Amino acid sequence: MDDLTIVKVGGNLIDNAAELDSFLSAFASIQGKALLVHGGGKLATNMATRLGIETKMVNGRRITDAENLKLVTMVYAGFVNKNIVALLQSKGKNAMGICGSDLNIIKSAKRKHPTLDFGFVGDITEVNAIALSDLIEKNITLVIAPITHDGKGQLLNTNADSIVTEIAIVLSKIYKVKLIYSFEKAGVLRSLENEMDVIPTLSEAEIIEMQERGSIHTGMMPKTDNAIKAMKNGVVEVIIGNLVDIQKNNLPGTRIV
Amino acid sequence: MDDLTIVKVGGNLIDNAAELDSFLSAFASIQGKALLVHGGGKLATNMATRLGIETKMVNGRRITDAENLKLVTMVYAGFVNKNIVALLQSKGKNAMGICGSDLNIIKSAKRKHPTLDFGFVGDITEVNAIALSDLIEKNITLVIAPITHDGKGQLLNTNADSIVTEIAIVLSKIYKVKLIYSFEKAGVLRSLENEMDVIPTLSEAEIIEMQERGSIHTGMMPKTDNAIKAMKNGVVEVIIGNLVDIQKNNLPGTRIV
Repeated sequence: MDDLTIVKVGGNLIDNAAELDSFLSAFASIQGKALLVHGGGKLATNMATRLGIETKMVNGRRITDAENLKLVTMVYAGFVNKNIVALLQSKGKNAMGICGSDLNIIKSAKRKHPTLDFGFVGDITEVNAIALSDLIEKNITLVIAPITHDGKGQLLNTNADSIVTEIAIVLSKIYKVKLIYSFEKAGVLRSLENEMDVIPTLSEAEIIEMQERGSIHTGMMPKTDNAIKAMKNGVVEVIIGNLVDIQKNNLPGTRIV
Repeated sequence: MDDLTIVKVGGNLIDNAAELDSFLSAFASIQGKALLVHGGGKLATNMATRLGIETKMVNGRRITDAENLKLVTMVYAGFVNKNIVALLQSKGKNAMGICGSDLNIIKSAKRKHPTLDFGFVGDITEVNAIALSDLIEKNITLVIAPITHDGKGQLLNTNADSIVTEIAIVLSKIYKVKLIYSFEKAGVLRSLENEMDVIPTLSEAEIIEMQERGSIHTGMMPKTDNAIKAMKNGVVEVIIGNLVDIQKNNLPGTRIV
């Protein structure tokens, strides 16, 4: 089995040209096959404000009405995705930006919830491992935006942490997958007061214990939950950290064990 | 050589769900290999108004400052492109939406003009026929948005008629290409008063003569100029018409001879 490094990055990088460039240089320096999944958080929120579109959040999830779906499709699959691709091309990577509807890569179902209408939010039902690996085998660096579809013509907004996790799991049958949830901190911190006090390893039991103690920040919980899921389902190595620190500064982040 | 049908469609279809669906059904009914290039005209203009971004046009070309580039990247490569892809997937086509930066499909150079600064507008310098045909041979239906890149990390706004023409020309070395410039009329009209009075064939001499007489509408001139260029450079068949009329109503449009 070949190695494959899969990286998730937040979309908040994109509005800072220097930070984005530094992140993408780190990504381009990964040896061997690599795949990138991005979000588009802050930029989508800024653009919503400019357009007078209301942003509703419940439990950290965006409620996606028709106007918000249009917005995230534009920002994530358009602006963020294509800028990353152009920059990776300039760094010598044969990048291609797609979302879940392209080649039917990620199918999802509109979320059903007993009391809450999430709108056009999709929960992943199927990831097309064959289509993904066909492209990866051609040395194409895939850049994936967090928009999926239901197969009946409807685009859906899907959480980027969930997408990267499900992709990593299905591709674990074909590659030795290393999965990195990259964000602005160097890893999971022992306390928010000390940015350098990164917890080197975390087991599922430790994560649950920390969650119960309330010492994992709520914004981090989708990452730790997804990290555990990936680890249990065939992904060889799972890291929560900062890709620039990992590639350039020899700071390995938090490894899930 | 295999047949390949290449279609250009304006972006103004996208905001009318019924028209878009009917166009895409016609496109999906094309026998054999097919490729779609789209614009995004009216929607980009509407969105610019909502965002308070000024739309400057000179000689029918949009002047693309940084804000306008962001806008067209969002609308063309994001919203329009991914909606078309999701709808084609629902019609059984294995569609994939890309723009010029993806796989370095279309390289362009920022336009230089003695007196006018077009901003982030790119004139095509290179089309990657190998990358395109690699995907076409995998029975992927490419859907191409009119955004290109300079190879140095900069996205550029490029006219969709120019893109479809250059793609048709380079792919003529590999396929027997039929090129259809699809728009809202049934073809080039003898007079704007009679929508059904379509000129069945037009030669280059006739087009030049009509242009000199002023009887070709200015909005049509990029199409007729591009159609002549395609015809002279290896494209087997060039049609200006309406794809729905061509596929469903047996109205063949205007053939360039």
